[in-house]
Amino acid sequence: MSENPVQPTRPIEWIPDQPPDLIPGKLRILDQTLLPNVYRTLATDNPETVYEAIRMLRVRGAPAIGIAAAMALVAAIQKETGSTGTLLELLHRTADRLAGSRPTAVNLFQALDRMRATARRHAGAEARIFKQTLAAEAIAIRDEDAAMCRAIGRFGADLLADAKTFMTHCNAGSLATAEFGTALAPFYTLHAANRSIHVYVDETRPLLQGARLTAWELQQAGIACTVICDNAAAHLMRRKSIDAVVVGADRIAANGDTANKIGTYGLALLAKAHNIPFYVCAPTTTLDMQCADGDAIPIEERDIQEITHGFGVNTVPTGVPAYNPAFDVTPADAITAIITERGVLHPM
Amino acid sequence: MSENPVQPTRPIEWIPDQPPDLIPGKLRILDQTLLPNVYRTLATDNPETVYEAIRMLRVRGAPAIGIAAAMALVAAIQKETGSTGTLLELLHRTADRLAGSRPTAVNLFQALDRMRATARRHAGAEARIFKQTLAAEAIAIRDEDAAMCRAIGRFGADLLADAKTFMTHCNAGSLATAEFGTALAPFYTLHAANRSIHVYVDETRPLLQGARLTAWELQQAGIACTVICDNAAAHLMRRKSIDAVVVGADRIAANGDTANKIGTYGLALLAKAHNIPFYVCAPTTTLDMQCADGDAIPIEERDIQEITHGFGVNTVPTGVPAYNPAFDVTPADAITAIITERGVLHPM
Repeated sequence: MSENPVQPTRPIEWIPDQPPDLIPGKLRILDQTLLPNVYRTLATDNPETVYEAIRMLRVRGAPAIGIAAAMALVAAIQKETGSTGTLLELLHRTADRLAGSRPTAVNLFQALDRMRATARRHAGAEARIFKQTLAAEAIAIRDEDAAMCRAIGRFGADLLADAKTFMTHCNAGSLATAEFGTALAPFYTLHAANRSIHVYVDETRPLLQGARLTAWELQQAGIACTVICDNAAAHLMRRKSIDAVVVGADRIAANGDTANKIGTYGLALLAKAHNIPFYVCAPTTTLDMQCADGDAIPIEERDIQEITHGFGVNTVPTGVPAYNPAFDVTPADAITAIITERGVLHPM
Repeated sequence: MSENPVQPTRPIEWIPDQPPDLIPGKLRILDQTLLPNVYRTLATDNPETVYEAIRMLRVRGAPAIGIAAAMALVAAIQKETGSTGTLLELLHRTADRLAGSRPTAVNLFQALDRMRATARRHAGAEARIFKQTLAAEAIAIRDEDAAMCRAIGRFGADLLADAKTFMTHCNAGSLATAEFGTALAPFYTLHAANRSIHVYVDETRPLLQGARLTAWELQQAGIACTVICDNAAAHLMRRKSIDAVVVGADRIAANGDTANKIGTYGLALLAKAHNIPFYVCAPTTTLDMQCADGDAIPIEERDIQEITHGFGVNTVPTGVPAYNPAFDVTPADAITAIITERGVLHPM
């Protein structure tokens, strides 16, 4: 179940049992909770295992969650021998379950909705065709995400062509997407063009996605990086020459307010105080036009054990409560620009 | 070597072997690296053990370090049987060694200088009197710090009489001082006056003094508190009604620029952005008039293993560097007021 990491890292893959047939097959998920110390993948065709993997952050990052959920629907129906009606009903039931795994990232709901819509459109097809169509749709979601990431990288690299020293938060890289990433995509593109860059990486408490994941994938790619504690960001902005802060997004409201990993909002305010541009990288699918503004975005609160027992030891006195919001909302006016696969969006 | 914690917690005590004689005696140090899970004190009359305890943060907090260093000088000379000249030479040599334990807190140097000055003044005394005088001086440093903390608590409680919800960073409490603390002193005073208050405590990476120490001593005192990750502060300021941020100080320059635990500067900027008053609590001994401004304050950089292997597990890929400044400097214009034992200082 293990293999050496390859470039670019793909956190979630669909592995057909007998290629070139897409189905039957399995999802191969890189277990990100074990990085950076252990590189282990798990292969599954059980949607409940995928639900658990999303819930436990074995697969995380808004685009990657959407891809995993779409593929989990394929896994759910591929061996079911009933009619297309039975398959459709099973698909909807599985989608309902998966929708409950994480509340904040819009990509999860978009991927599930897209699979449901495709399923409805092909409800009259015979079961074999229905399954193949949905498998192709899940693969398309993956491939489109990969292409979007590459395009974000190109637009970002153009915009940041003169920047050398960056700061990023959490992991909006290959590990959070089909491959290549969103916030990290400009870095990969600049690095591929032999530009010398350096990335300061917030460790990103409580789950340390910056220290564990971003540093790992930048190291794999040969991009120079340095890990800092989240609370050192302001000091770094004052003492070192940070040219730009670049982060990802889990959901962007219609007015540009952006939900991303807890800490992003503070980082945006600190960048503003130091006159450092603050960029959000995200595919346009992250835009949720149903959300008027950031107040309409639900913020997931996670188990306080992530804070109190995060490192395998108890770091908070027993009985003292903790508050563990997984995301925060950065208001549009604190964002310099949003870099998408279609171009750069500036605030009005 | 263990005992139940008592109120107020005293992180460092001088325990005479045969009271009421002050000497010979031992320092009793509460090992703060083991909190909140283990309450263990160590008793020592070896200055090198005190050096190690300061270096390893078993005793930490600017005032407590000064007290420990002063008492370590007493321990160094108390059993030496030579002349007063020999004692004086030994005291200076020990002070030179202790001065190298930590570079940022001014109290360490002030306490050592005060002990050196007292020693010089009594260089003509007989050895027995010389020892007793220095022991009394070290105890006086302790007692004066305790009185200063009580006074800070009174001034702070007056200033914050209408505030209910606070945020603090790191530990500037009983554990950092003789007793009672600086930043936490107003909370103790308000709590003693039966005021209902709630304190949000930044966990304070990398060494988690907020989660481990501040939450512990507030819990001991029965003061309601909630631990957050450092990077959740901005979200909390926006979503909850934080009435004031209150922190301590390791050194305050002549112009009011304040060195304190890494993360303080960012917190001050975030408080400013949310129109939340930001208070520094410190005895006037923390003022270093030799430092014109914050740029003149040396910032200790500590071992990166505090970040990469903080809690017994490796959280950063091997080979990736980290940057670990222990302090940052908050410019005077980001500080609402400095609460001292003599009154409240407002910026000019």
